[in-house]
Amino acid sequence: MRVEVVTIGTELLLGFTLDTNGADLGRALAAAGADVARRTSVPDDEASVRAAVGEALARTGFVITTGGLGPTPDDLTKQAIAALLGRRLVPDQGVLHALEERFRRHGRWPMPAANRRQADVPEGATVLPNPRGTAPGLWLEDAQGRTVVMLPGVPRELRGLLADEVLPRVAARSAGQVVLSRTLRTTGAPESAVAERVAPVEDELPPLSLAFLPSTDGVDLRLTARGLDRAEADAHLTRAATRLRERLGDHYYGMDGSDLAAVVLDAVRAHGRRLAVAESCTGGLLGARLTAVPGASAAFVGAVVAYADDVKRDQLGVPAETLARHGAVSEETVRAMAEGARRAFGADCVIAITGIAGPTGGTPDKPVGTVCLAAGRSADVRVATRVFPGDRTEIRQHGAQAGLDLLRRLLIA
Amino acid sequence: MRVEVVTIGTELLLGFTLDTNGADLGRALAAAGADVARRTSVPDDEASVRAAVGEALARTGFVITTGGLGPTPDDLTKQAIAALLGRRLVPDQGVLHALEERFRRHGRWPMPAANRRQADVPEGATVLPNPRGTAPGLWLEDAQGRTVVMLPGVPRELRGLLADEVLPRVAARSAGQVVLSRTLRTTGAPESAVAERVAPVEDELPPLSLAFLPSTDGVDLRLTARGLDRAEADAHLTRAATRLRERLGDHYYGMDGSDLAAVVLDAVRAHGRRLAVAESCTGGLLGARLTAVPGASAAFVGAVVAYADDVKRDQLGVPAETLARHGAVSEETVRAMAEGARRAFGADCVIAITGIAGPTGGTPDKPVGTVCLAAGRSADVRVATRVFPGDRTEIRQHGAQAGLDLLRRLLIA
Repeated sequence: MRVEVVTIGTELLLGFTLDTNGADLGRALAAAGADVARRTSVPDDEASVRAAVGEALARTGFVITTGGLGPTPDDLTKQAIAALLGRRLVPDQGVLHALEERFRRHGRWPMPAANRRQADVPEGATVLPNPRGTAPGLWLEDAQGRTVVMLPGVPRELRGLLADEVLPRVAARSAGQVVLSRTLRTTGAPESAVAERVAPVEDELPPLSLAFLPSTDGVDLRLTARGLDRAEADAHLTRAATRLRERLGDHYYGMDGSDLAAVVLDAVRAHGRRLAVAESCTGGLLGARLTAVPGASAAFVGAVVAYADDVKRDQLGVPAETLARHGAVSEETVRAMAEGARRAFGADCVIAITGIAGPTGGTPDKPVGTVCLAAGRSADVRVATRVFPGDRTEIRQHGAQAGLDLLRRLLIA
Repeated sequence: MRVEVVTIGTELLLGFTLDTNGADLGRALAAAGADVARRTSVPDDEASVRAAVGEALARTGFVITTGGLGPTPDDLTKQAIAALLGRRLVPDQGVLHALEERFRRHGRWPMPAANRRQADVPEGATVLPNPRGTAPGLWLEDAQGRTVVMLPGVPRELRGLLADEVLPRVAARSAGQVVLSRTLRTTGAPESAVAERVAPVEDELPPLSLAFLPSTDGVDLRLTARGLDRAEADAHLTRAATRLRERLGDHYYGMDGSDLAAVVLDAVRAHGRRLAVAESCTGGLLGARLTAVPGASAAFVGAVVAYADDVKRDQLGVPAETLARHGAVSEETVRAMAEGARRAFGADCVIAITGIAGPTGGTPDKPVGTVCLAAGRSADVRVATRVFPGDRTEIRQHGAQAGLDLLRRLLIA
């Protein structure tokens, strides 16, 4: 079953609003077995809405729109689509009554005249009740079975209507076929190296498709099954994921939404250990990532953000001589930071990071992006130096991820 | 000047990736005087790319694409567009040389064969150099002046190419009308309170439009001018922003992209002081926000992330009796954390945060969302308790922002 999505709103085109509705619809429709063939964003302009919906309907016969159902003059989705399908707009007494009730309940009475327009629906449309807001959803089919579903643009209302009204109807139409994905997460190797590892088994993957998704976290590999029933799709995905994992070796760290911080916390907890952190250039980012994981306190005890050199010396006991001789960004300093954090927190696992996140502070020997990392398990401390690409934000993200990865590799070894 | 944008990537349709590139392009093009008439997202499928770009070109004659320029087999934007415009793909020696240089410099040699494909360009295309990545942008015009600009999907590379190569060419083509916005940032008051403050001057704002944008940072007020020339738009925006600032009082903290962390660092530096931080529930988030600001080291010295109670005691000197009597989330504890951080770091400005970010750990007295905050300037320490809405992530974001705001109000008083 193929679907197109049309998201309506001048804000989307001007870039003031991210199209989170389009992404929400994509995830939900794929899981319900519909293939989103195209997404189109158009401004609050009747001719644009009519053209985009008309073209989408001609291609797939099934279109979902978001936005333009509110009470203000720039809300004109209903007019555009009613005109497209040759329907009149008529007041729906049930919707009008529900609207009036809502305004009474919220103590906003009399109801503004503009809101009465929200009770107009295209003749023959099915009203999808929206208990979360004022604009109901509308489901409109013509004699040929071509369908337009109009949903409001408020994200919470959209998600509610999707779950309660739209997805059950879509799943019933999609005849059991699903779009399912599984993602293998890797870190520590560039995209081309991951692609080379995987190349020998790529022939075995169809009917699944494979996509490489690089980010500062590493490279994700996403397998997608389309046009299969759920059991077939699951079997193919499980087999393919197993083959890929064999090829990826220790670059692989988790499936789907796995977060490397959670993987590391699990490993620390499994060893019955306590984790402490010493950060300089990441400035708290590593601690923030670890504590974003619910239940982090079972393994993580704390961190020192040693941004100034005197803090590295006083709080972490990095010898002044080490700082003077090797510099704040050096393997000697990062090792001393790790040992200092372990002592200060009475921890047995530790990660330390110091680097040059830029935009200034680089030298020919140590350019911006240079990050020294240490990971320790009891007396076993490993250090590494990396030069990351990107801007300040990306270098810091790379640094936090690489610090976590260094400890992960030490703990799984 | 009308433009269409086509964003390419199966992950966009499946909703795994938010289309931030589409939003970035919208903002940048509007500011350069181009009207984005429509945005289309299509999967990594040659026929879909070709159809979408062809239709967009027929409507506006100017299309910008993002994505599908990488080295993997699902990157096929160049093939699709070259076929659409009847061009062959030919290796560009300059691009090939730059690619090889890049791989050599990063010590990844020999360059994987897959990357050689990135040096193929449609015959007659202008290469837009991309020093931030491996895929250059491509600017392709046909004999009728119809133009397709291909940009990479990596957000940082896209933004760089936009600023350096694309916008100057677009601005030269557009006739002088602009869409300009200005945003006033507030924090510490709910949307309804901000709206009440602003209501008396709303009549003076047209021809500008005003939007309220609430988030965990506070409430942003965005003024937008459309259909004016640059000088008129600037004059209206400046006058309206001044009127709004008067109404907003000390809830206002900055314009446009202002970050409260940068505002606080500036205030600390202006007082010639050093800032230290003690965090529990935010786990490093506050330090990360402060150090995300380039040059933070001129004011920020460091932080203790005291996640475990023994760390609050041993590293920050919070008395065991305070913890036992009042609990880790209490105004007494947060005050002791602030004083401990000031002592430990020899700082004169300090922020401390402790709270219950959830999902578990709430009690009837202290529900999930309860956050105790302290801000200090020398001996003057203020404490506050707030209960924030939202999930773990949002509560932590609220907490960090409110901690910064407490110190801001102390420093500007």
